[in-house]
Amino acid sequence: MAKSVFYHAGCPVCVSAEHDIINLIGADNVEVIHIGENRGKIAEAENAGVKSVPALVTPNGNVLHINFGASIAEVKG
Amino acid sequence: MAKSVFYHAGCPVCVSAEHDIINLIGADNVEVIHIGENRGKIAEAENAGVKSVPALVTPNGNVLHINFGASIAEVKG
Repeated sequence: MAKSVFYHAGCPVCVSAEHDIINLIGADNVEVIHIGENRGKIAEAENAGVKSVPALVTPNGNVLHINFGASIAEVKG
Repeated sequence: MAKSVFYHAGCPVCVSAEHDIINLIGADNVEVIHIGENRGKIAEAENAGVKSVPALVTPNGNVLHINFGASIAEVKG
């Protein structure tokens, strides 16, 4: 299975969702990217359609916004 | 793995998310409940903490609200 990408920003909602997603999908099937620390990836996330974090981009390119931690604008600060 | 429960109400956002979740987790690992048709399950969803659909309740009881299709109030109509 192609990897999904989980974008987050380290917020409590993000961390909780990350644990759930890894439990459900398996750590080998998801790449985790912290766009608060790895700010060069913010544009990548936006281009993928991510509006808020945490969000999971599936292998087919769909974006699943999971609960709500912070908007991309808030991550940009 | 214990099953997750995916609550939805048949909306386009719900159907899209359902496909993604089943692709990611596997159909055998998720029980799909349409609370628009199976209205007796609305209270069960609310008790699990579901505020809007589509939502996935993980085996450990966490609720992942995925994108936004409709609030529970809207499903009740």
